[in-house]
Amino acid sequence: MTEENGKYVSDSASQMQQIVLPNDTNILGNLLGGKVMEWIDMVGAMVAYRHSRRPIVTASMERLDFHHPIKLGNIVILKAELTYVGRTSMEVSVSVFSENPRTGEKLHTSSATLTFVALDDQGIPTPAPPLLLRTEEEKRRFEEAKRRRGQRAK
Amino acid sequence: MTEENGKYVSDSASQMQQIVLPNDTNILGNLLGGKVMEWIDMVGAMVAYRHSRRPIVTASMERLDFHHPIKLGNIVILKAELTYVGRTSMEVSVSVFSENPRTGEKLHTSSATLTFVALDDQGIPTPAPPLLLRTEEEKRRFEEAKRRRGQRAK
Amino acid sequence: MTEENGKYVSDSASQMQQIVLPNDTNILGNLLGGKVMEWIDMVGAMVAYRHSRRPIVTASMERLDFHHPIKLGNIVILKAELTYVGRTSMEVSVSVFSENPRTGEKLHTSSATLTFVALDDQGIPTPAPPLLLRTEEEKRRFEEAKRRRGQRAK
Amino acid sequence: MTEENGKYVSDSASQMQQIVLPNDTNILGNLLGGKVMEWIDMVGAMVAYRHSRRPIVTASMERLDFHHPIKLGNIVILKAELTYVGRTSMEVSVSVFSENPRTGEKLHTSSATLTFVALDDQGIPTPAPPLLLRTEEEKRRFEEAKRRRGQRAK
Amino acid sequence: MTEENGKYVSDSASQMQQIVLPNDTNILGNLLGGKVMEWIDMVGAMVAYRHSRRPIVTASMERLDFHHPIKLGNIVILKAELTYVGRTSMEVSVSVFSENPRTGEKLHTSSATLTFVALDDQGIPTPAPPLLLRTEEEKRRFEEAKRRRGQRAK
Amino acid sequence: MTEENGKYVSDSASQMQQIVLPNDTNILGNLLGGKVMEWIDMVGAMVAYRHSRRPIVTASMERLDFHHPIKLGNIVILKAELTYVGRTSMEVSVSVFSENPRTGEKLHTSSATLTFVALDDQGIPTPAPPLLLRTEEEKRRFEEAKRRRGQRAK
Repeated sequence: MTEENGKYVSDSASQMQQIVLPNDTNILGNLLGGKVMEWIDMVGAMVAYRHSRRPIVTASMERLDFHHPIKLGNIVILKAELTYVGRTSMEVSVSVFSENPRTGEKLHTSSATLTFVALDDQGIPTPAPPLLLRTEEEKRRFEEAKRRRGQRAK
Repeated sequence: MTEENGKYVSDSASQMQQIVLPNDTNILGNLLGGKVMEWIDMVGAMVAYRHSRRPIVTASMERLDFHHPIKLGNIVILKAELTYVGRTSMEVSVSVFSENPRTGEKLHTSSATLTFVALDDQGIPTPAPPLLLRTEEEKRRFEEAKRRRGQRAK
Repeated sequence: MTEENGKYVSDSASQMQQIVLPNDTNILGNLLGGKVMEWIDMVGAMVAYRHSRRPIVTASMERLDFHHPIKLGNIVILKAELTYVGRTSMEVSVSVFSENPRTGEKLHTSSATLTFVALDDQGIPTPAPPLLLRTEEEKRRFEEAKRRRGQRAK
Repeated sequence: MTEENGKYVSDSASQMQQIVLPNDTNILGNLLGGKVMEWIDMVGAMVAYRHSRRPIVTASMERLDFHHPIKLGNIVILKAELTYVGRTSMEVSVSVFSENPRTGEKLHTSSATLTFVALDDQGIPTPAPPLLLRTEEEKRRFEEAKRRRGQRAK
Repeated sequence: MTEENGKYVSDSASQMQQIVLPNDTNILGNLLGGKVMEWIDMVGAMVAYRHSRRPIVTASMERLDFHHPIKLGNIVILKAELTYVGRTSMEVSVSVFSENPRTGEKLHTSSATLTFVALDDQGIPTPAPPLLLRTEEEKRRFEEAKRRRGQRAK
Repeated sequence: MTEENGKYVSDSASQMQQIVLPNDTNILGNLLGGKVMEWIDMVGAMVAYRHSRRPIVTASMERLDFHHPIKLGNIVILKAELTYVGRTSMEVSVSVFSENPRTGEKLHTSSATLTFVALDDQGIPTPAPPLLLRTEEEKRRFEEAKRRRGQRAK
């Protein structure tokens, strides 16, 4: 697969917005942590799916912090984009925001990093297109991810 | 309520993206029409909720066409923004797109127009902030909606 | 397909009843508009499915008004029947009622008109059986629908 | 509570219809038994709720047989009506039918008998209105239920 | 099928635990009876599935009593094990407990007995492995079930 | 709070089992990664809820790997227990297993570590009971967690 088949970060960047409804909350009216995780995985999967044009599978998620509780009636905004693409694996960064539509207040509640793997029709890992980097920020994140992933592999 | 309290179309514009999963489809693997309607209402409600900063209620939806079936595994993209704001009612336009991530093909499948009403804490209709219009397109759509709504009122 | 294969309005008339549970409501305890739409589509689809004995797809929904909010704990009653059948398309009328079981009060909250299309096993539109009309009311509604649909086609 | 406050069987008789969708089925495409039970309880609760105009709670369900599997894409029809009302308890009979809309074939798949109890606002059992019996069939079923319940109480 | 293929009660014994969330409750904050039934069927199906290593179908459920309401925020514990295995049918006993995590109080709320049938890949009943009995309690329950089932068959 | 109020690891250890149904899977029939995360959070929350007897909130989840895809029709088993309790925070370890009931094969698919915080009725962090350690394994895991958490705090 040559550089020509590569795709830009913006080609697969994805976004989800959800209103927190009663069925997503616990007895305190707080959004369940596991529900946020489910949405993070969903929007991350969209990015990997769009980049690879292949069925994909979640391979891992880095440490995830919940900085603020998210309340019933708030809107959750999830923004996801690729930071790194290896041969068959794609690393996606997801930022989670909570917006209170009654006040307009918007909080950054979580940052997640997930790795997805592209699969062929037999379910075997298959190459993903290379990631084309345009901005300095994109290049910095790519190098950072590469270094971090190299250390893990040792 | 004066012009100063008004808000721009872009202040409340909202977007949702959903992967079509098995539980959203019928026996042909097509997304259920009613599921699309549910998402249209949800993203429209986000817009009205963000503009008014009030609980809101759906008052009506204009005629809705489904131009193409949406298949299992596709991504549905819903884009919504205000076209008109009266005293307590807000008209939102929603465009629905279906994207096949395997091919990258993207189709415009539906256009919807919904009216929401802002409520006070007793559930009584309450004024919504005026809509500030910036572009020619926004002004044209506002006038069109006003005329259309005036005819209905007669 | 001859008149003999035709079916009566009553052969496919369908009805759904639902108790409004917490997971169907917003922060005011009102049934979500989109949930009503989902149920309208579902009961309408039942009618078209029963008439055609074929997989069907929602083609359009006419303007829909919500006359009253429907509260948590109420029962929603949806009654649906055919008003018109063309070659492959079937028009279904759905009436929505809200019943408060605590008081017995029953309100007509919405009227919807949807068009469904019968599909063969390749997903191609396929003829639906003709609609046999028995009552004056059925004939009147059929003619009205035919005229309305003819105007739209121009 | 006098006879005048009584209500007829037909006053609270209820009906539900559901299309079996993928999320209601197991790996063989059969409707989950537990899903049928959930719907039986829901339609039975409607009847008790309508008769008593009170919050109600499920107290018991008699032996339940599943005579035929129900397949994906079929329509499930549940018909429920009161057979017996004691002081605070209400016995509801539910008949379940499966309809194959492709063939029109309709099967009686289950019969259920549930007992519900009416509650006051503190959640304490509270009297339900007496049941007025009109037909011979209604009287026969009432006597049968009374005898059956009397034996259980011993 | 010989004794050697038999399996012990403990080989398939299964357990489920669920926190009662808002979408499982009615307007009084009580867990819906039908939701408990759905979970009873699910955990019972696990047992039969594990014993037979075959797709299975629910054939019947014995009378079920709800001794106590289960409240929002409680944990529901379901324990299930085989009591009897015939040629193709498996009888499972399910005990339901409600735990209030705020107080630690634990109540036995229901006991259920279900019969499942093992199916081959055409959906035809197929033999299940014999049940090997180890304890006196297991033997007593097996004989009791056999006698009870024999009476029903007459 | 003295040692006497402390609780053992086994007092709050929790377990969940789920059959993977169609609505939990993607187009390849694999369980969605986000669904596993949701269940991990749920069973972890049960442990923290049982230990603290307080409403709790998810604060963080450590890196999570998915070693094997989990298929439609498999049973997922989640086992969770406390490894560490600080003043208001509780660390829970969750092990995820996938069992194929057709073959009996059982795989360890993921290990997760989550931190929950106990809340008082105003939603403010409140002390959790100390964790009483009985086995060498429990002591080793506690010290390991303490050291790991100490390093993070620096």
